[in-house]
Amino acid sequence: MLDSNDHEFPLQSKNLPFSFYVQFQSLDYDNIENQLFLEEERRMSYLGFRCLEISRWVVCGWIGFLTGLIACFIDIAVEELAGFKYQVVKENIEKFTEVGGLSISLLLWAVLNAAIVMVGAIIVAYFEPIAAGSGIPQIKCYLNGIKIPRVVRLKTLVVKVCGVICSVVGGLAVGKEGPMIHSGAVVAAGVSQGRSTSLKKDFKIFEYFRRDTEKRDFVSAGAAAGVSAAFGAPVGGVLFSLEEGASFWNQMLTWRIFFASMISTFTLNFFLSIYHKNTGDLSSPGLINFGRFEGDSVAYNLYEIPLFILMGAIGGLLGALFNILNYWLTIFRIRYVHRPCLQVMEAMLVAAVTATVSFTMIYFSNDCQPLGPEHAEEYPLQLFCADGEYNSMATAFFNTPERSVRSLFHNQAGTYNPLTLGLFTLTYFFLACWTYGLAVSAGVFIPSLLIGAAWGRLFGILLAYITPNSWADPGKYALIGAAAQLGGIVRMTLSLTVIMVEATGNVTYGFPIMLVLMTAKIVGDYIVEGLYDIHIKLQSVPFLHWEAPATSHWLTAREVMSSPVTCLNRIEKVGTIVDTLSNTSTKHNGFPVVVQVLGNEEPAKLCGLILRSQLIVLLKHKVFVELARSRLTHRKLQLKDFRDAYPRFPPIQSIHVSQDERECMMDLTEFMNPTPYTVPQETSLPRVFKLFRALGLRHLVVVDDENRVVGLVTRKDLARYHLGKHGLEELQLAQT
Amino acid sequence: MLDSNDHEFPLQSKNLPFSFYVQFQSLDYDNIENQLFLEEERRMSYLGFRCLEISRWVVCGWIGFLTGLIACFIDIAVEELAGFKYQVVKENIEKFTEVGGLSISLLLWAVLNAAIVMVGAIIVAYFEPIAAGSGIPQIKCYLNGIKIPRVVRLKTLVVKVCGVICSVVGGLAVGKEGPMIHSGAVVAAGVSQGRSTSLKKDFKIFEYFRRDTEKRDFVSAGAAAGVSAAFGAPVGGVLFSLEEGASFWNQMLTWRIFFASMISTFTLNFFLSIYHKNTGDLSSPGLINFGRFEGDSVAYNLYEIPLFILMGAIGGLLGALFNILNYWLTIFRIRYVHRPCLQVMEAMLVAAVTATVSFTMIYFSNDCQPLGPEHAEEYPLQLFCADGEYNSMATAFFNTPERSVRSLFHNQAGTYNPLTLGLFTLTYFFLACWTYGLAVSAGVFIPSLLIGAAWGRLFGILLAYITPNSWADPGKYALIGAAAQLGGIVRMTLSLTVIMVEATGNVTYGFPIMLVLMTAKIVGDYIVEGLYDIHIKLQSVPFLHWEAPATSHWLTAREVMSSPVTCLNRIEKVGTIVDTLSNTSTKHNGFPVVVQVLGNEEPAKLCGLILRSQLIVLLKHKVFVELARSRLTHRKLQLKDFRDAYPRFPPIQSIHVSQDERECMMDLTEFMNPTPYTVPQETSLPRVFKLFRALGLRHLVVVDDENRVVGLVTRKDLARYHLGKHGLEELQLAQT
Repeated sequence: MLDSNDHEFPLQSKNLPFSFYVQFQSLDYDNIENQLFLEEERRMSYLGFRCLEISRWVVCGWIGFLTGLIACFIDIAVEELAGFKYQVVKENIEKFTEVGGLSISLLLWAVLNAAIVMVGAIIVAYFEPIAAGSGIPQIKCYLNGIKIPRVVRLKTLVVKVCGVICSVVGGLAVGKEGPMIHSGAVVAAGVSQGRSTSLKKDFKIFEYFRRDTEKRDFVSAGAAAGVSAAFGAPVGGVLFSLEEGASFWNQMLTWRIFFASMISTFTLNFFLSIYHKNTGDLSSPGLINFGRFEGDSVAYNLYEIPLFILMGAIGGLLGALFNILNYWLTIFRIRYVHRPCLQVMEAMLVAAVTATVSFTMIYFSNDCQPLGPEHAEEYPLQLFCADGEYNSMATAFFNTPERSVRSLFHNQAGTYNPLTLGLFTLTYFFLACWTYGLAVSAGVFIPSLLIGAAWGRLFGILLAYITPNSWADPGKYALIGAAAQLGGIVRMTLSLTVIMVEATGNVTYGFPIMLVLMTAKIVGDYIVEGLYDIHIKLQSVPFLHWEAPATSHWLTAREVMSSPVTCLNRIEKVGTIVDTLSNTSTKHNGFPVVVQVLGNEEPAKLCGLILRSQLIVLLKHKVFVELARSRLTHRKLQLKDFRDAYPRFPPIQSIHVSQDERECMMDLTEFMNPTPYTVPQETSLPRVFKLFRALGLRHLVVVDDENRVVGLVTRKDLARYHLGKHGLEELQLAQT
Repeated sequence: MLDSNDHEFPLQSKNLPFSFYVQFQSLDYDNIENQLFLEEERRMSYLGFRCLEISRWVVCGWIGFLTGLIACFIDIAVEELAGFKYQVVKENIEKFTEVGGLSISLLLWAVLNAAIVMVGAIIVAYFEPIAAGSGIPQIKCYLNGIKIPRVVRLKTLVVKVCGVICSVVGGLAVGKEGPMIHSGAVVAAGVSQGRSTSLKKDFKIFEYFRRDTEKRDFVSAGAAAGVSAAFGAPVGGVLFSLEEGASFWNQMLTWRIFFASMISTFTLNFFLSIYHKNTGDLSSPGLINFGRFEGDSVAYNLYEIPLFILMGAIGGLLGALFNILNYWLTIFRIRYVHRPCLQVMEAMLVAAVTATVSFTMIYFSNDCQPLGPEHAEEYPLQLFCADGEYNSMATAFFNTPERSVRSLFHNQAGTYNPLTLGLFTLTYFFLACWTYGLAVSAGVFIPSLLIGAAWGRLFGILLAYITPNSWADPGKYALIGAAAQLGGIVRMTLSLTVIMVEATGNVTYGFPIMLVLMTAKIVGDYIVEGLYDIHIKLQSVPFLHWEAPATSHWLTAREVMSSPVTCLNRIEKVGTIVDTLSNTSTKHNGFPVVVQVLGNEEPAKLCGLILRSQLIVLLKHKVFVELARSRLTHRKLQLKDFRDAYPRFPPIQSIHVSQDERECMMDLTEFMNPTPYTVPQETSLPRVFKLFRALGLRHLVVVDDENRVVGLVTRKDLARYHLGKHGLEELQLAQT
């Protein structure tokens, strides 16, 4: 195999500019366990563990609370700013409807949108490009064990929040829900560490949690809290985290994640209830409010089930089309629109086009509907309709997407003209597809739901035309259509079902929604992968799926592993260590530690595993055998020194080692993991995979039957294999 | 450590008659992977794996469908029979109320109940004692990796179903929901194997699934389908399975489990809709029907949250009391009531006492309430009340427990007299506590809910007395009380929250129910374990929790493992193998296979692991090196031979090996697992535990740094350690 240990460079699968590939870092959920750690654990009393457990709950409570607050802030900001914008534009349109010259209104609308979106695009493109998009692919990667740099930093959070407000207010075909998941994760990563490196503030608390395993658990909780706040779906949040992240399910952890989710929904509800002036009424749902489906309209019948399945298939097809178009667009963007200024300009263009298209659609639509009392809170446009009537195209276009979805779900039968809905679906589909992947912070959930709700309602209306009695409640079909479309695009399964059920506040639809999502996934997967998976794949990170490819039993560890492996001796010369770490051509991250049998030419026996980060801390503190002897007062290196350096370990270049020091020796015994997991060379790939995935490993040492190191399996060695249409395929590795 | 390998005898922790301890069998999710298996996998094409995947879905569909049918059958049978019984007793009571001599009615009622319960108790006590109780502890054990004999047999299912009908109709303080989980699991274990050993019918399908790993996955799905049918809670079912069973979360598996759950609810709904004569209306919930909480009554306010938490604490305390009393009672039963005839008599006694107590309570109650139209379907007793009125104590006692719960949740404020509720709570608490653990098939969910609903409603009524305005809807407090009491008894967390939410059909209460369950668990765990855990512990099975005890880092594999280990050579004499297997004092189940270096006294090197069951199949088919040479036409042993023998491998005594054959040799190379997972001796207990639990191992070989076998860790070695009040404690092992 290739001499590619665990260096942090991407897999290269397409002929794309290299600058595009993200630099990632694998996370390690295992190898931190060295003697120092074990000593600390052994010193800790039962009470100590109790305190630790309590602080985990406290952290989760804070994660939930802060995530809820952020969701609340975004919601209120969007509500106020969008309200203001629509009010201004509406007044302007009304003025010019009478006197003529509506093109000035269009101009105002387009310029307003473009200006707002420009702000959002500038902060994203220039300050923190990682904040672009919904952040869900990045969080999926994080939970899978791949950290993309800067993904959980405070700056990312700030840009994300401001960015999403600008995108939604700017009238793009986006939702504010997806970014909540990313926001929750950032909050979790921050709170759980008890310090902010960006703000240079260390609260000296939660130091125990400064390692990958613990941090990952909290980030799961944060992501769940984000989902929970976004959709008012605490259970859906937990399931999302588990579906995307958990490799080893732990009851207490799940319960804590659920706690964080619940606190998050609760906080959001509480503050929104104050904002909506019915303080203390906690029964309102999350950020997105589909409205409750209640009463007779919710019932469905056996003969409707084939219709639902048909809709699922349509959703799968449309979703696959969306994904393919977006894939091409993304490739185009990577090749030609990678300069920040171009990205900002593209975002502004999309904003202006969105406004123009919306305006045109509204202008040429002559679908007038009587104005009812239920429109009090919205922005009904009268335009050329008679007094007391409003333009029904405008309810779909001249509104935040959340409100449009709600109208499609709940407005009475007859509110929408089929032609209006058809045109709307068509234009919105392309607008949403163009928008996803722009350098703005925004989610794809709501646009997908909106597209689906529109064609679903159309489907319902057509059904009602065809069949005599009007059993087909269009709102119900709008819901099913929305589920089908969203499922066809993102291909989530269990968690999405639960999110939809919780967001509609009704468990009756559980079964049809499940059927629809399943059909959409089967149909869609036949054509192309899910949107998030496409974007993850384009970034060429070594994402590990749940199981090894089914037909990979003929591969063994020997064929999969990287070899030869750079090993270190238990007592090693400092010079050798520095040279090994400085070797830019390999950039290994983990090194098996071996003991050489004296006077023997054979490969040495494995006795431990040490990480690059640990070696760097050792070098920084000059933990050399000679120095320990000469300086009696030399402070012993503690676990705290490793924790203080986590997670931003300095590069090897920043550590100065003099020529004399290079001749010193370093004793790694205390700092290496003395019992790394190993496998024999004959182990089949599925067994290696299972061990690797279940325990969240970063390095797995392959040994022969004398316990001598023969190779090392890293995440990338496993992620290479992939089940294609022609059986097992091997991805090309970047020859960096 | 003790010389106790992986023999299948219980841990003995109390001075109890030995006959009580269950004989268990550990399940193995890993070691089946030998060369034969790998060859089959390698031969299988991509299409083959696809077909396998599809058949998994088909099996899950069948599991859901059959489980739903069984639930439907139980429901209708109980409805019809209980309706008939109550009608008879009611008419009788009404007759004698006028003419005097109510004691005859009492006698009729008591005798009727005792007779019905006798039938249920006889079939359980004499035919299949494993069908007693709810079966949830047994299923928890199964999912954890411990198979209690006969737990998933067809006979168990039949006895369980008939038994639960008798118990509920017999008027015991039990529910029909718990046993559904067990029933679902049996269905799953049967369907997935494509044959019935009891009926001696092999359909020759699903042969691939005849091993522990696959079977366990299907049993998870069955348990989930059972929960789903019982409570109309498909998501709750999935979470229950995961909370209790999953060690390694797999997205596709979870999705299949969800599918089975959904099909189960759907089937139940569909057939019940036919029974209730509104065919095709699929929006009704599961077996238990709490009724929907809708409208204004569902809202709760911030200041109610401390009240909810207080109720959670009360629930925790009452639950702990329940568990302690039941623990003492169970110890008493194990010592003195272990003969089947005594068990039947006790069950009849409980049935008669239940009827007597109910009658007395109704008789002396003078709480008359006006009869409304909502009582049309129930059995209101007029007794000494005026015409047009009914006895309110009777709605609680003279009814199936499910209906009583619903009345407590939904009847209007003022329906119940506080004194009535208080007395009811008190008597029902002791009745339910006495009933759980009888030799009848029955669940504890509904009685717990009923107790909780009664004192919760009382709590609500008292609140309404104290505070001026009547904001305290008693139905709401009944729900919270029910959750608190159930949580205090069973201590389930996430899954129970979701089950409650789904069963009430309303997500609004998610947050308070979570708080209440959490409080109940914390308070209860402080005093005593949950009811299921108590019963699991009493059976002394080596149940593995999620993580190693927190303070166990100072223990290493060396201290935990069993040694010396009985090893076999790769090419071993048949006599040695027979003797090893026949050794009744050890009864090992897994044997490391080693290769001896010629002329070397050192321990031999590990080269594989073979199971007792595999050796038995080899002996049965006489797979000896000499025979293979002499008979050219000798059929090669195939994977099918192992699968046909699964899971009821014959005992070694049934296999006859002649004196000549004892001198033959057996080559284990092809049949052993060539790459068993190993750990070095210095590995800390938490690491050993994590590996063992995450991969579902049955044997973990401990090796030294030359890859020589030094010990073997089995489930029992890990389950011994237990975190008590005085730090880490070690349970005593049975010296069998």
